[in-house]
Amino acid sequence: MKTAQPLIQRLCIIGVGLIGGSLARALRDAGEVGEVIGCGRGEDNLRAAVRLGVIDRYVTDPAQAVSGADVVVIAAPLSAIEPVLRAIVPCLSVNAVVTDVGSAKGSVVADVERVYGAIPPHFVPGHPIAGTEQSGVEASFATLFQGRRVILTPLAETSSAAHHLIQRMWELTGAEVIDMGVRHHDAVLAATSHLPHILAYTLVDTLARLDDRAEIFRYAAGGFRDFSRIASSDPKMWHDICFANREQLLEMIALFSADLERLATAIRNEDRATLLATFQRAKRARDNLYLE
Amino acid sequence: MKTAQPLIQRLCIIGVGLIGGSLARALRDAGEVGEVIGCGRGEDNLRAAVRLGVIDRYVTDPAQAVSGADVVVIAAPLSAIEPVLRAIVPCLSVNAVVTDVGSAKGSVVADVERVYGAIPPHFVPGHPIAGTEQSGVEASFATLFQGRRVILTPLAETSSAAHHLIQRMWELTGAEVIDMGVRHHDAVLAATSHLPHILAYTLVDTLARLDDRAEIFRYAAGGFRDFSRIASSDPKMWHDICFANREQLLEMIALFSADLERLATAIRNEDRATLLATFQRAKRARDNLYLE
Repeated sequence: MKTAQPLIQRLCIIGVGLIGGSLARALRDAGEVGEVIGCGRGEDNLRAAVRLGVIDRYVTDPAQAVSGADVVVIAAPLSAIEPVLRAIVPCLSVNAVVTDVGSAKGSVVADVERVYGAIPPHFVPGHPIAGTEQSGVEASFATLFQGRRVILTPLAETSSAAHHLIQRMWELTGAEVIDMGVRHHDAVLAATSHLPHILAYTLVDTLARLDDRAEIFRYAAGGFRDFSRIASSDPKMWHDICFANREQLLEMIALFSADLERLATAIRNEDRATLLATFQRAKRARDNLYLE
Repeated sequence: MKTAQPLIQRLCIIGVGLIGGSLARALRDAGEVGEVIGCGRGEDNLRAAVRLGVIDRYVTDPAQAVSGADVVVIAAPLSAIEPVLRAIVPCLSVNAVVTDVGSAKGSVVADVERVYGAIPPHFVPGHPIAGTEQSGVEASFATLFQGRRVILTPLAETSSAAHHLIQRMWELTGAEVIDMGVRHHDAVLAATSHLPHILAYTLVDTLARLDDRAEIFRYAAGGFRDFSRIASSDPKMWHDICFANREQLLEMIALFSADLERLATAIRNEDRATLLATFQRAKRARDNLYLE
């Protein structure tokens, strides 16, 4: 007779927001988690998480929160990862596996090295490529990761047991799990996520600072609504990401700026061929990507 | 006994695409148009328009198409407006009112002046702020303009009868009609529409030209899909718009580029306050705009 054991006996989520909350919901729905302990700085949010059934209980002190947990997920902003690690490392169970959900991985690995003095076998850097411009546990939902990709960037020192546990955890949420090198992850995300956010924030701010901004925004069409949606993302979180992935992001901004300047020059010089070829190439690439 | 007369007896649409087709559909649904004549360069598209019931019949020669029409809507790309005007002017009915739907108005007014030698009373420059990244008559639908804004930029020379007829025509589609100066229209649109399109095209093209573009695009998240949607817009049409509104667009690109450079400098110098303040300002502006 088989006694069904959940994959995770006690899960500790540090930072019960959109990502942390959605992960807890998905694992509960899968029946693969025993107890869920929440931890975070906003007690209102943690109380809401208990009320919504996302976590069983909460502990505001990270060191106490991780006690007895077999999996610890740090779903806090990137700038909080190092202090959280410093707080929890002395209190982790001997078999605990720790992972994070940060949008940049080089800075997390550097944080881990600084705190531990070396890469420990039980830390698995991770990044679910999912989210909305919303934040907070109220915005969380169990199917957030379904059909989405989760990138893990295990290191040479990472134990394969820890790696496979986190892999399995994400697979249970309906995500496709992919391994990638830390540097490659950060380059890919700089291009497809960090740069677009910077552009959207910059555009909205540029327009918001025009003299006739009320007028300007009044005539924004549907395209603008979609284009600017990511400028509604959490400013603190994105500010963290920009500094965490600084070098690769600056490289992408430079590439983009040079291309934009090239297009401006084409417009100025009435170089119709260049403009048309660029737009056609972009349309083809975008249509191929989504076939919508 | 009142005999219901439609607002427009014979409507001629030159360029039966997303905008022209949707306008015809909306006026038909409102029962405010007698006959609809289509005109354009693609006979397949015109045949589809007849089959779909968007137009009653088509004439490929613009000069013949406008014969007997009381309203002529030029819904062709901006670069086609001058040649179309040259072709139709000698054949317009004495009472015909002519309007257009171009996304830039200064260039249209210049075209009109070149063709007529002066601004005629029966031409009403117009711009429905509606559309999708789709094009062609198959993409047209009667409710495209419902709740959207249509900007008219009548000139001192424009007759108020012509102005009011075009105003009424657009109101029948469910749109809110607003009058604006030509230059102001072009400044507002450069900011909210033309610049975002340039940014989206540039971003997708920048990424498409990276060495590992297949990889890059594979990991694009939901935010990228929304952000890049407008890069699927018609390249030829947008190439026309960029040149038609060249000065104002270049000014907006310069403003944006300076702001982007400022943010890049803040990232480089780890100037956290500037980055956070910018993101917060942008989020506030965007949230206020849509309250979603």
